[in-house]
Amino acid sequence: MRLITEQQVISSDKKIIMAVADGLGGIPKRPGGPTELEAARTPNMDKLAAMGSLGLLDPIGPGITPGSGPAHLALFGYDAVEHNVGRGLLSALGLDFDLQGNDLCARGNFCTLDENGNVADRRAGRVPTDIAQPLCEKLEKEIELEGVQVFVRSEKDHRFLLVLRGEHLSENLHDTDPQQTGVPPLACEPLSEQAARSAKLIDTFSEKARKVLADQDQANGVLLRGFAKKLPIPTMSDRFGLRAAALADYPMYRGLAKLVGMEVVSREGNHVERAKDLKKFKNDFDFFFFHFKATDARGEDHDFDAKVAAIEEFDGVISTILDADPDVLVITGDHSTPAAMGTHSWHPVPALLWGCNVRTDAATSFGETSALTGSLGRMPMMHLMPILLAHAERLTKFGA
Amino acid sequence: MRLITEQQVISSDKKIIMAVADGLGGIPKRPGGPTELEAARTPNMDKLAAMGSLGLLDPIGPGITPGSGPAHLALFGYDAVEHNVGRGLLSALGLDFDLQGNDLCARGNFCTLDENGNVADRRAGRVPTDIAQPLCEKLEKEIELEGVQVFVRSEKDHRFLLVLRGEHLSENLHDTDPQQTGVPPLACEPLSEQAARSAKLIDTFSEKARKVLADQDQANGVLLRGFAKKLPIPTMSDRFGLRAAALADYPMYRGLAKLVGMEVVSREGNHVERAKDLKKFKNDFDFFFFHFKATDARGEDHDFDAKVAAIEEFDGVISTILDADPDVLVITGDHSTPAAMGTHSWHPVPALLWGCNVRTDAATSFGETSALTGSLGRMPMMHLMPILLAHAERLTKFGA
Repeated sequence: MRLITEQQVISSDKKIIMAVADGLGGIPKRPGGPTELEAARTPNMDKLAAMGSLGLLDPIGPGITPGSGPAHLALFGYDAVEHNVGRGLLSALGLDFDLQGNDLCARGNFCTLDENGNVADRRAGRVPTDIAQPLCEKLEKEIELEGVQVFVRSEKDHRFLLVLRGEHLSENLHDTDPQQTGVPPLACEPLSEQAARSAKLIDTFSEKARKVLADQDQANGVLLRGFAKKLPIPTMSDRFGLRAAALADYPMYRGLAKLVGMEVVSREGNHVERAKDLKKFKNDFDFFFFHFKATDARGEDHDFDAKVAAIEEFDGVISTILDADPDVLVITGDHSTPAAMGTHSWHPVPALLWGCNVRTDAATSFGETSALTGSLGRMPMMHLMPILLAHAERLTKFGA
Repeated sequence: MRLITEQQVISSDKKIIMAVADGLGGIPKRPGGPTELEAARTPNMDKLAAMGSLGLLDPIGPGITPGSGPAHLALFGYDAVEHNVGRGLLSALGLDFDLQGNDLCARGNFCTLDENGNVADRRAGRVPTDIAQPLCEKLEKEIELEGVQVFVRSEKDHRFLLVLRGEHLSENLHDTDPQQTGVPPLACEPLSEQAARSAKLIDTFSEKARKVLADQDQANGVLLRGFAKKLPIPTMSDRFGLRAAALADYPMYRGLAKLVGMEVVSREGNHVERAKDLKKFKNDFDFFFFHFKATDARGEDHDFDAKVAAIEEFDGVISTILDADPDVLVITGDHSTPAAMGTHSWHPVPALLWGCNVRTDAATSFGETSALTGSLGRMPMMHLMPILLAHAERLTKFGA
C-alpha cells in the first residue's frame, strides 16, 4: 500500500495540521463509565467532531502496546515494525545529539554493584541528574578506547547515552543489562561475526567505567542496552512530497520528527505559544506536527482527573490551532495511556479529521465510543497519512 | 504481526478464560428479525456486555466458512491457513489415538453401496455406533496391507478413523468419497509421484473392506477423505508462554486443544460440572478453554428455537464460569451456525471481552448487531489471542 501511496503523490497548496495529544486514548475509571476524553469538557473538539470524521487507530497491531518511537512513526505514515527504532537511537535523538553516519548508540543506566560484582540495583537508586551529569562527563573524559571516540551524555536521573564513533562498528550486540539483580552484568555478546570488535569495545568501556566510578557508593557500574545505529529512513519529503515542520517541546519528539526529515521550527514557550507559531510558519511548510505532552504524563501518573484536565487544556489550544486556518486538521494521539493503568496501552486511539473533503458522520462529540461510529472506522495508524494526503488533494487517481 | 506478538510475551499471574459456544453466531429466522443470540434471554452475558468490549470476529477470511479445526486454531491465535489441519488428523486427535510421527490418517465413513457398486447412501443410514464399532474391529483384524500396520477405530455412528503406519507414506491423496450418490467411490488419486504407493494401499484397503463387509446390508462399503499426517505446530506455551488447559467433552475439541499443547483437565460430566472445574484448576494454568457444543448442534438441526434455548443454557453456565474469578474472560464462538442454514457459515462471530483493562463501549446486550458497535471492532479471529494477552498484561511494550 505504501508504494501505491507514494506513486500517487501530487502537489497542492493545501495545508495539513496533525495535532497530537500524547497518550490521548483511555479506558473508564470503572467499567461502564466514561474514558478520560469522554469525561473531559471539550467544546472545541466536539464542535469539530460534529462536522468531521471520527475513527480509531491501531498504532502497531492488535494487542501490541507501542513505545513513543514506533507510535509516532506510525502517525507519520511509516511501518514501525519495518523501521524498528532502537532505544539507543531514541536517546540520541532525544538529546539532540549530532549523530553521524556510523555512530553506535546505546542507552546506559548507572547501576549499583555489590562487593562480588553482582547488580544490587539496576538504577543505582535512581541517582539524580545533578550527580549523574558530572559522572557522565568524567566517563567521557577519562575512558579511552582504541580507534573510536567516546561520548557519554546524561539523559535524566540514572539514564545516559553512550555513543562510540569510529569505523566498522556494529549494533548487532546483546544488552549487558541482565534485567535482574543478584547476578553480574552480562558480557556483551556479538550477534554476528562482524560485531565481535564492537562487543569487545563495549566490554572494555564497561570495565573502565567501573574503575572510573570506583569511588561511588551508588553509581559504581553501568548497564548498556538498545544498541542502535542511525537508520536510513526515507523522509516525508521523499515519500509524500511534504515540507514538514515540527512544533514540539520534548526532545524525543523533536528527534523523531527529525528522523523523518521534519524541520523543528518551534520548541520554546508553552503550547499556546507553539500553537501560535503554526500561523507564523504556515507559508513555509505543507505539513505541521504539533505535539502536546501533558495528557500522556498525567495518564502515567495514574491520575484520571488530571488527565481529564490536561485534555481540557489541549481543547483550549485547538482554538489557537484553528487560527492558522488549516485545510485539513487531524486531532489524535500516538497511543493510549489509560490513567487506570498508568502506562502506555494497546487500546486503539481516537482520531478526529476535519477540513475540506471530509465525509461527516453521526458522531457529535469526540470520544472513544463515538469514534467507533465514525466514518474513518477502525484502521492501522499508518493508514492515517494517506488519508490526510487525500483530503489535502495531494494524491492523484490510481489507474484510469 | 504474529512474530511481534511472540517477541513481546512476558509473564503475569493474570488468568484468562475463553468460553466458546460452538457455532454461536447466527442470522435472523426472517429478514429484520433477531438472530438466535439476540432472541435468547441472556441476563448474565448482557450484564458483562454492558461492562465490557464487544466485537465481531472473522474466523478465516471474507466469505470463508470454516470447519471446526481451523476455526478453533484461529481462536487459539494460529493462522489456520498456514496450519491446515486435515480431517483425518482431527479424527485421530479426537479419539485420543496415539499418533506416531509418520502415521497417515484418514476420516472414514461407512456407506451403502448398491448392487452395481454405486453409492446409495454416503452415511450408511447413519449406522449407530454399537453396530459400527464391531465392524471397525473386524476391519482392523482382517485387513492386511503389505508393509504397513492398519488401525481402524470407531468414532461416532458411521464415522471412523483409519490409520496406516509404515515408512514413506504420503498424505498427498485425493478423497475416495465422491460426495454424491449414484456413482461408485473414487479410486484414490495420488497428488504427487511420492504418493503413488500410498494411493495403492488405500485402494487395496477399500477393496478388502468391501469383502469384509459383504454380509452387511447398510454398512457394506467405505469412503475415505481428509488424508493427513501430524503437523509440527508450535504450542501455546512456546508461542505465548501460557500453561493452557482445556475443559471440553467432545473428542475433536480435546484433540485440537492437545494439538496446540493444552492439557485436557476436564471432559466428564455436564457443562456445569466442567465449569466448576475452572476454579479447581485455576492455580495450575494461565489459560482455560471451555467448550460448549449444544449451540452448534441445534443450529445444524435447523432448529432456531432449540438453538435459542441452548444459548440460554450457556448463559446460565456463565455464572459458574465467573465463580472462578478470571482476570480476563472472552465469550465467543468458533464460527456461526445459523439455524436458518443448518450448517456452519462464514458470518463473523460475536465476541464479548470482559475483565481488567477493558475499554467499555455503548453496547448493553450481547448480540451480532450490538457487537458491531463494540470497541473491539471487526477483526480476524486470530487477532483475539494477542488482545487477550494484552488485557492480561502478558505482552510488553514494542519499542521505546
